[in-house]
Amino acid sequence: MLSALLAPGARALEQTDPLPSWNDGAAKQAILSFVKETTDQASPKFVPPAERIATFDQDGTLWVSHPMYTQVMYCLERVAVLVKAKPEMAKAEPFKTVLQVLKGDREALAKLTMKDLEVVLAATLTGMSVDEFNAEVKKWITEAKDSRWKRHYTELTYLPMQEVLKYLRANGYKTYIVTGGGQDFVRVYSEATYGIPPEQVVGTAGGTKFGYRKDGKPFLTKEPKLLLNDNHAGKPEGIHLMIGRRPYAAFGNSTGDQQMLEYTKSGDGARLSMLVLHDDATREYAYGPAQGLPDTKVGTFTQALYDEAKKQGWVVISMKGDWKRIFAFE
Amino acid sequence: MLSALLAPGARALEQTDPLPSWNDGAAKQAILSFVKETTDQASPKFVPPAERIATFDQDGTLWVSHPMYTQVMYCLERVAVLVKAKPEMAKAEPFKTVLQVLKGDREALAKLTMKDLEVVLAATLTGMSVDEFNAEVKKWITEAKDSRWKRHYTELTYLPMQEVLKYLRANGYKTYIVTGGGQDFVRVYSEATYGIPPEQVVGTAGGTKFGYRKDGKPFLTKEPKLLLNDNHAGKPEGIHLMIGRRPYAAFGNSTGDQQMLEYTKSGDGARLSMLVLHDDATREYAYGPAQGLPDTKVGTFTQALYDEAKKQGWVVISMKGDWKRIFAFE
Repeated sequence: MLSALLAPGARALEQTDPLPSWNDGAAKQAILSFVKETTDQASPKFVPPAERIATFDQDGTLWVSHPMYTQVMYCLERVAVLVKAKPEMAKAEPFKTVLQVLKGDREALAKLTMKDLEVVLAATLTGMSVDEFNAEVKKWITEAKDSRWKRHYTELTYLPMQEVLKYLRANGYKTYIVTGGGQDFVRVYSEATYGIPPEQVVGTAGGTKFGYRKDGKPFLTKEPKLLLNDNHAGKPEGIHLMIGRRPYAAFGNSTGDQQMLEYTKSGDGARLSMLVLHDDATREYAYGPAQGLPDTKVGTFTQALYDEAKKQGWVVISMKGDWKRIFAFE
Repeated sequence: MLSALLAPGARALEQTDPLPSWNDGAAKQAILSFVKETTDQASPKFVPPAERIATFDQDGTLWVSHPMYTQVMYCLERVAVLVKAKPEMAKAEPFKTVLQVLKGDREALAKLTMKDLEVVLAATLTGMSVDEFNAEVKKWITEAKDSRWKRHYTELTYLPMQEVLKYLRANGYKTYIVTGGGQDFVRVYSEATYGIPPEQVVGTAGGTKFGYRKDGKPFLTKEPKLLLNDNHAGKPEGIHLMIGRRPYAAFGNSTGDQQMLEYTKSGDGARLSMLVLHDDATREYAYGPAQGLPDTKVGTFTQALYDEAKKQGWVVISMKGDWKRIFAFE
């Protein structure tokens, strides 16, 4: 009676499916079994609460990243704002090409090289104060909409993955984003969008420089100096730098996540490594090129990665087969 | 009646002094007032729980750092272990001088330049796997003892500061260590010693390199590449990199903490910046050179820092006057 008073919803909760947007199958079962094994005190694979760390890639794992990464869209659209302040920029490459892209010229987008993109990123992500940058991103993310669904980007998170985040947290896991995207960018909306506070976002990070305003107030300026390239080997390196513990569970969707999944899975006890396969052209997008899916440069999932997943016991999530619903707005 | 059942100790707790090792005075009052102002929902300076961040320097703020920083003692003593494996090292400087220091030659210690120390640090803190390093530090920290009290270094934490850590956490603050010392070093014992998990330790950090063992298992090697020099301006820069939010409270004891305290205090609302002044030669050590205390190279507290503290409304904690007890073992 007393325990019922203290936790009135406990019994009801136990009987509720924590992953209602998942179809029954190997992927859903792998998540449920992992949580059961690591949180049951009687289990030989019990993990003390303090060590329960789970890491999630963002682009293509937690939200839509096609046809282009959201942060790249921010940087491209930001060029238009910069050009207003400095009209001479419009004549110089790569900004000239970016302005064509913004006018709807898809072919112009393909012309941009990685080097061009780096110039655009440096111009739009550095050189301002941290507070100014945060304010700009906050404004953009609440206004900008994607081209297909005409919805805010933060509405394009995957409901099944939001359920996994909540389910893990309800079981004592600390959830982290470990993204190839910009750490400062994602931190602006991570708490409202995923329930993940800024300090639990690990991402590609540049240096900042401490200085003083004219009135003597200290501030930080974003510098064009790369500290952490949080992709491929940079993901486990970033996890060590920012968290200092090996995760028990890791979720990704592309070759950039491979080393994070290897690092996670090679720890002792129960470890969960999962990959989202985008095989649903109708409800979202279909790309690989694993399993004969169309090739892409945005979030590549190679056949080699697919084969390693099968060999290492990682679980591949089929968006088409495993997810009952993809978006909350459906 | 029901609320009494749910929180049986609540009333008793309210009547207990959360800072029993502090004498009544301005320093203790500043801490109590800050917590009251920022946690009372009716207060205009209320801070939402998610934003409650407090940062603490370690050496000289949370534990003894004289006559030499504990991590430097680790590095020096580690040289003896390295020499056993590679006897030819004993003939080369600066290792030759370090071996003299370890034999008790105090004058030899003064001969070591900053450059020498860097060589010793690189030799003892890099070039091994993260797991090997963690195991070595763990073994040393449970065995090594300091020269004055003949106690483990982890027993030389300041009881009044341990009370502040617990008091802030009990009031919803996330407590971080922000140290000029090595992030990986402090993370080994931070949870057991301060109740601060590894992911809440920000410190001077080097890069790691992801690779594979012969059996295919991935691992991280500690590289001699500095990513973050977490001292002076590096402290607010490190706080931004690792936490991404400005602290509401910060504690330090030397010029290396100045920028962290400035950064903290310049935020909106109630902000608490405090400095520990080592003015108790009997119970601990006395050094400044602020207020005419003896000069030191280990944790310098200059008169300029003291004057800025007074000007900016930071609170200086006198170990002699403000602390009833210094160590738990007293």
